Amino acid sequence: MIYFQSDYTEGACPEIMERLLATNMEQTPGYGEDEYCRRAEELILKACESPESKVHFLVGGTQTNMTVIAAALRPHQGVLAADTGHIQVHETGAVEAQGHKVLALPHAEGRITADQVKKACLAHKEDASFEHMVQPAMVYISQPTELGTLYTKKELEELYRVCREEELYLFVDGARLGYGLAAEGNDVFLPDLARLSDVFYIGGTKVGALFGEAVVIQHPGLKKDFRYLIKQKGGMLAKGRLLGVQFETLFTDELYRKVSDHAIGLANELREAFRKKGYAFLVENTTNQLFPIIADEKLAELGKKYGYSYQQRVDENHSAVRFCTSWATKAENVKQLIQDL
Amino acid sequence: MIYFQSDYTEGACPEIMERLLATNMEQTPGYGEDEYCRRAEELILKACESPESKVHFLVGGTQTNMTVIAAALRPHQGVLAADTGHIQVHETGAVEAQGHKVLALPHAEGRITADQVKKACLAHKEDASFEHMVQPAMVYISQPTELGTLYTKKELEELYRVCREEELYLFVDGARLGYGLAAEGNDVFLPDLARLSDVFYIGGTKVGALFGEAVVIQHPGLKKDFRYLIKQKGGMLAKGRLLGVQFETLFTDELYRKVSDHAIGLANELREAFRKKGYAFLVENTTNQLFPIIADEKLAELGKKYGYSYQQRVDENHSAVRFCTSWATKAENVKQLIQDL
Amino acid sequence: MIYFQSDYTEGACPEIMERLLATNMEQTPGYGEDEYCRRAEELILKACESPESKVHFLVGGTQTNMTVIAAALRPHQGVLAADTGHIQVHETGAVEAQGHKVLALPHAEGRITADQVKKACLAHKEDASFEHMVQPAMVYISQPTELGTLYTKKELEELYRVCREEELYLFVDGARLGYGLAAEGNDVFLPDLARLSDVFYIGGTKVGALFGEAVVIQHPGLKKDFRYLIKQKGGMLAKGRLLGVQFETLFTDELYRKVSDHAIGLANELREAFRKKGYAFLVENTTNQLFPIIADEKLAELGKKYGYSYQQRVDENHSAVRFCTSWATKAENVKQLIQDL
Amino acid sequence: MIYFQSDYTEGACPEIMERLLATNMEQTPGYGEDEYCRRAEELILKACESPESKVHFLVGGTQTNMTVIAAALRPHQGVLAADTGHIQVHETGAVEAQGHKVLALPHAEGRITADQVKKACLAHKEDASFEHMVQPAMVYISQPTELGTLYTKKELEELYRVCREEELYLFVDGARLGYGLAAEGNDVFLPDLARLSDVFYIGGTKVGALFGEAVVIQHPGLKKDFRYLIKQKGGMLAKGRLLGVQFETLFTDELYRKVSDHAIGLANELREAFRKKGYAFLVENTTNQLFPIIADEKLAELGKKYGYSYQQRVDENHSAVRFCTSWATKAENVKQLIQDL
Repeated sequence: MIYFQSDYTEGACPEIMERLLATNMEQTPGYGEDEYCRRAEELILKACESPESKVHFLVGGTQTNMTVIAAALRPHQGVLAADTGHIQVHETGAVEAQGHKVLALPHAEGRITADQVKKACLAHKEDASFEHMVQPAMVYISQPTELGTLYTKKELEELYRVCREEELYLFVDGARLGYGLAAEGNDVFLPDLARLSDVFYIGGTKVGALFGEAVVIQHPGLKKDFRYLIKQKGGMLAKGRLLGVQFETLFTDELYRKVSDHAIGLANELREAFRKKGYAFLVENTTNQLFPIIADEKLAELGKKYGYSYQQRVDENHSAVRFCTSWATKAENVKQLIQDL
Repeated sequence: MIYFQSDYTEGACPEIMERLLATNMEQTPGYGEDEYCRRAEELILKACESPESKVHFLVGGTQTNMTVIAAALRPHQGVLAADTGHIQVHETGAVEAQGHKVLALPHAEGRITADQVKKACLAHKEDASFEHMVQPAMVYISQPTELGTLYTKKELEELYRVCREEELYLFVDGARLGYGLAAEGNDVFLPDLARLSDVFYIGGTKVGALFGEAVVIQHPGLKKDFRYLIKQKGGMLAKGRLLGVQFETLFTDELYRKVSDHAIGLANELREAFRKKGYAFLVENTTNQLFPIIADEKLAELGKKYGYSYQQRVDENHSAVRFCTSWATKAENVKQLIQDL
Repeated sequence: MIYFQSDYTEGACPEIMERLLATNMEQTPGYGEDEYCRRAEELILKACESPESKVHFLVGGTQTNMTVIAAALRPHQGVLAADTGHIQVHETGAVEAQGHKVLALPHAEGRITADQVKKACLAHKEDASFEHMVQPAMVYISQPTELGTLYTKKELEELYRVCREEELYLFVDGARLGYGLAAEGNDVFLPDLARLSDVFYIGGTKVGALFGEAVVIQHPGLKKDFRYLIKQKGGMLAKGRLLGVQFETLFTDELYRKVSDHAIGLANELREAFRKKGYAFLVENTTNQLFPIIADEKLAELGKKYGYSYQQRVDENHSAVRFCTSWATKAENVKQLIQDL
Repeated sequence: MIYFQSDYTEGACPEIMERLLATNMEQTPGYGEDEYCRRAEELILKACESPESKVHFLVGGTQTNMTVIAAALRPHQGVLAADTGHIQVHETGAVEAQGHKVLALPHAEGRITADQVKKACLAHKEDASFEHMVQPAMVYISQPTELGTLYTKKELEELYRVCREEELYLFVDGARLGYGLAAEGNDVFLPDLARLSDVFYIGGTKVGALFGEAVVIQHPGLKKDFRYLIKQKGGMLAKGRLLGVQFETLFTDELYRKVSDHAIGLANELREAFRKKGYAFLVENTTNQLFPIIADEKLAELGKKYGYSYQQRVDENHSAVRFCTSWATKAENVKQLIQDL
C-alpha cells in the first residue's frame, strides 16, 4: 500500500533527524528560550527580510490558528474566512471554543477576495443592528488554500489594503507554505508575506519536519504577551529546542526550498499524467495537492494499491479525490501510480 | 411618529402593570424561589399538559438561548440552525462565546426540515474526518421563525423524530410564541411543543410582558443543575418574582392568548390591506411580522410618519421592510397606516 | 414573617413604579437607544461631575461584572479581588466562564490594599515563570464591600495610583453603592469614584429600583464597542427604556440619596440596639448590612419571626448572621425586631 | 554549566531516538490512528492491568490537563486541587480558559486529603446559596506532587472513595509518574492508579521521551468522543505515530522503569549528600525533585557552575531551591555537585 492521501505520512527529512540526534543530549533551557530557537528565528527573519518581526514556534496548525486568533480578537469579534477554510471546516470548532465566530464567505477555488471582505465590512457597519452581530476583525486565508490554489501577489496586496482600511488583522495560514513558494507561477514569497500580513506561519509539519509551525508576527498588538497565549493554549513545548533545531535546519542551506521543490516536481509529473489520461480536476492548481475526478470503478481499483483522500461526489459515477505529494514522496511510487492510471 | 418596527416598543399590558403595582411592597425570597414563580410554573405546566416538565424564568431571549445551549452541549458539539436563525445572525456571537459553533443550514422561508437535519448528521458521521468537525448535538428552531412563518405539527413531529434518531436535543425559541399560537392555520399548540421538544420557551418580552421568557424543559439532562447555569450566565434576576408575577398574570384568564389575538387581528387587517393595494411580500406568513416589498420612494414617504425595520433590498427600486403589530398596537394606528398606503 | 435577609425582597420605590406606569404605553426605540436612557445618562454624569464618562445600563450585578471584565481583559489576564469578593465567591464562576481567573487576595474586613496589589504585580513580574502564570490586569473591589465595610478616599486613591503604575484597570462594583454614599463617615462620593476608577457601577437593584445597574466608564479602551459586549453577554434589555426610566427617576430630586438615607437610618438604629444589648459583630461597619454574632438558641427564636441570612459559625454556640435594611424597610419592623432582641 | 533546574533539559533516551530513526520513512495514517499507537496502548493497558481502559496520546501536560478537564465538566462545575497544583499555579489559566474555576484547597506538602474534599463538597451542598457557587465535580491531584511528595495507596483509596460518594471525577496528573513509581517507599503502581482513578496520565516529556503524555481513561463518560476534544484543544498531532513509537518503546523491556530508576538513584545520592552536609529541605520527599534550603551566599557560588530553579525565600539569608535529576542526568555531574556542596 502506497499512501498519497496526505503530506504527513512520514517522519522528518534526514537532515532534521540527524540534527535532532546530534543535539539530543545537550542541555538547554525549556519552553523555547534556547539558542536553537533564537538562531532559527534569526534565519527566518532574514529569509523574510523583516528584522522587526517576531517568530514563535508552535507544534501544530490547529493550535497555531486558535492561539493567533485568541491573541488578536476581543470577545465580540470574529474572523472572516472562506467557507472551505480549515478553521471553518476541520478544527472541531477550535475557534469557537475560543469564543469567536468564523464569518464564512463563499470561496472561489478556496480563495476569497478583497472585494468580498470589503463588502462584508460595509454590510456590517451599515446594518442598523450592527451591535447585534459579530464584528469582523480579522481575515484568515491559507496560502496555499485547502484546495491547493494560490493567492497572487496582487490579490494579497488588495486583501492587505482592505484590511488596513477596515482595521482588520490579516492572518495567513501557511501550513503548506513551502509547496506554495515552490509552485510554478507563484509570485508570493516570504518577504511579500511579511510585508502583506499582520501574522502568518511557515508550516513545518507538512514540509519536512516532524512537527512544528513558525509563526511570524508583524503587528505590534499581536507581539505583546504572545508567549502567555501559547502557554495557555497548551502549545508551549517543554523541550522547545526541538522546534528550534528543526526550523534552524530547514532554513539552513535552503532545505525548506529543496524539500518543497521535490514535492512539487513529483506533483507536476502526476498532474501531467492525469491530464494526459484525460482526467479533469475538481480545481486546477500548481501545488502538491491534486484533486482529480475519477470514475468510482477506477477508484475502487486504485484503492487496492494506493491511499488517497475522498473529497466529494461529482456525479453518479465519479468522485473527486485528493492525491498529495510531499518532501518524502518517492519518485518510484509516483511512476508506479502513473503506470496504473 | 408611529412605530411599527418591532413588537417591543411599549411597556407591559395593563393587567401586568397592575399586578406589579399591587404586589410591589410584598416581601419575597429572591432569585425565583418565591410563590409567584411557583404558581406561574404551575399554570404554564397545566397549559402545556406536561406536569413533568420544569419551568424557569429568564429575562431575555439571547440570554435564554445561550443558557440553554451551554447547558446542553459538550465542548465539541454544535447546534444546527437555519442560516436566518436568531442565534446565527443577531446575538453578537453569544453561542460562540459559550464555545459552540452554530452549524447553519440554508433556510426555506425561515424554516429548516427534518430531512436537512438528517442529512447533516449522516454527512458528519460518514466523513472520515468526523472527529475534526463539530458534532451536531442540538437543533434550534424558532416558532414563529424570524420571518414570521410557522412550522406545522407534522414538520415538528418529523424534526422531533429525527432528533430522537440522531440523539439531538430539539430546542424551540418561542420569543414570539404567542403570535404563532394565535395565527390562522396554526396547528402547533403548547401541549404539542411540550411533547415534541426537549426544551422550548414562551416569550414574554414581545408578548405583553415588560420582559421575561419562560423556559419549559422536558429533557432530564437539561433539568439537572439548570439554575447554576442561569446564575453563571447572568440571567438570575435578584427580584425573580417580577417574572413570576408577569407570567402568572399572562397565564390567568387566558391573557397570553388574548394579547396575542389582538396583535394577530391587526396584523391580518394590515396584511389584507397590503395585498389589496397590490404589494407583494418577501415571505408569506400569518403571524405578527409582515414583510411587504415597497418602492423606495413610497418608503421614504411612509417613513416620515411610520417606523418600520429595513429588511433587505429586493431590486433597484424596491425593498422588503418589516411592519410588526403587537399586544400594544392601536387599531387606529393600523387604520391610519392603511389609509396612507 | 419579616424579612431582613437581603435588600432585594420588595419591588421598587413608589416614584419608580409611578414613572413606569406613566410611561408604559409610550413607544420608544429598543435596546437602550431611547430618550429615557439618554437623560438618565446625563443626570448620572452630572452627579459624577464626569462629562467625558459613558454610561450603560445593565440588568443585574453578575451580568455587569462578567461583561465589564470580558470587555477589559485579554485571554491570559486575570482580575485581582478580595477572597470575599462577589466575583470570587457568589457568581457560579461567571468570570471563569468568560475565560479569566480571579486572582484572590486575602481580605481584611472585605477590603484589599494598594500594597497587596503592588506586591502581587511585582511577584508576577519577578517570577522566572511569569508567562506560565495568569497576568494581573484588573483590580476588582466592591464599595461597600460584601461585608458592608467601606474604602476610604485615601485607600481608593492609593489603589488607583498603583493601578496606574502597574497598568491595571480599577473596577468598582457598586451594587450597594447608595448605602455606601449615605453611610456615616464615608468620604468617597460619585465624583471621587469617577475620578479614581476606570469603570464602576451604581447599583439600582438593591437601592430602590426593580432591577438595573448603571455602569460608568472612564477608560477609553472600555468604552469602545461596549454595547456589542452587553448584547453578547445577554444583558441588552429589549425594552431598554425600563432602565432609563428607573435611573432617571433615581437621579431626579436626589431620590437615590433619599432612599439610601432611609436604609442607613434604620440600619443605624438596629446597629445601636445590637450594641446596647451587648452583641458583638463579625465586622464593624456603617452601611446597611449588619453581621451580629448571636447565640444559636436566640437565633432559633428570632428565626420564627424574622428572616436573616446565615453567614458563618463563630463558635460552638454562636453564629454570625446578616440583617439588612433597605430603601423598603419599614421603621415599625425594625422597632419590633429591636424589642425582640 | 550543568543544568539541574528541570527534568526536561535533554532530548529523549537513546532507545527512543533509535526507534524514531528506524521508523522515520514508514508511511502511517495520521492523527494517532496507526499501529504504533495501537500497540503502545496495548502495552500500557497490560502494564495497568486494565483492559477496559482507553489510552490517548497527547503532546504536553498543560494540553492534557485542559483537555481532560474540558471533557469532564459541565459549565458550572469546577475542579478541586491543591493550591500548589500545576493547574492552579503554572498553566496561565488554561483551565479557566476552558471556562472552569480551579477550587484551590490548602496543600500539605503538595497533597490534599479525602477529608478536605469531603468537607468542600458538604460545605457546597449545605450552603443556602449553593447555586451561586461553582459546583465541585472533579478532584485533580499530581503523583508525584509539584513538591515531589507522593500519595500513599491508602490516601489514594480514601480520595477515590470520597470521589465515588460525592460523584466527583478523580484525575491524576502523572507528568512525573515514572519517578513516583520508582521512588523508595512508594506503594502506588500503575494497576492501582487504573483502579483508583477515573483518568490519569503517564508522563513521557519528563521521563525519557521527546514529548508526550499517555492518558489512561477509566470513566465511560470521559471515553466518549474524547478524540474530538483532543482535536479541538489543539492536541491532535498530525504525525501521531511519533507518540505511539515513543510510548511503545518506553513500555518495552521495562524502559520506563529503567530510566526512572536511573533518575531516582542519582536523586537519592544527592539527597543523602545534602543531608550529610546538614542541609534541611523545604519538604521531605523520595522522588527526583529536591528542595534543599541553602544560604544565599552559597547559592550564588553554586550558581556559577550549576543550574537550579529558585523556589522561595525561607529567611533573610536562606532560600529553598530545586535540583532535579532525570533519566538523562549523568552520574559524574551529580558527583561533582556533591563535591562542591
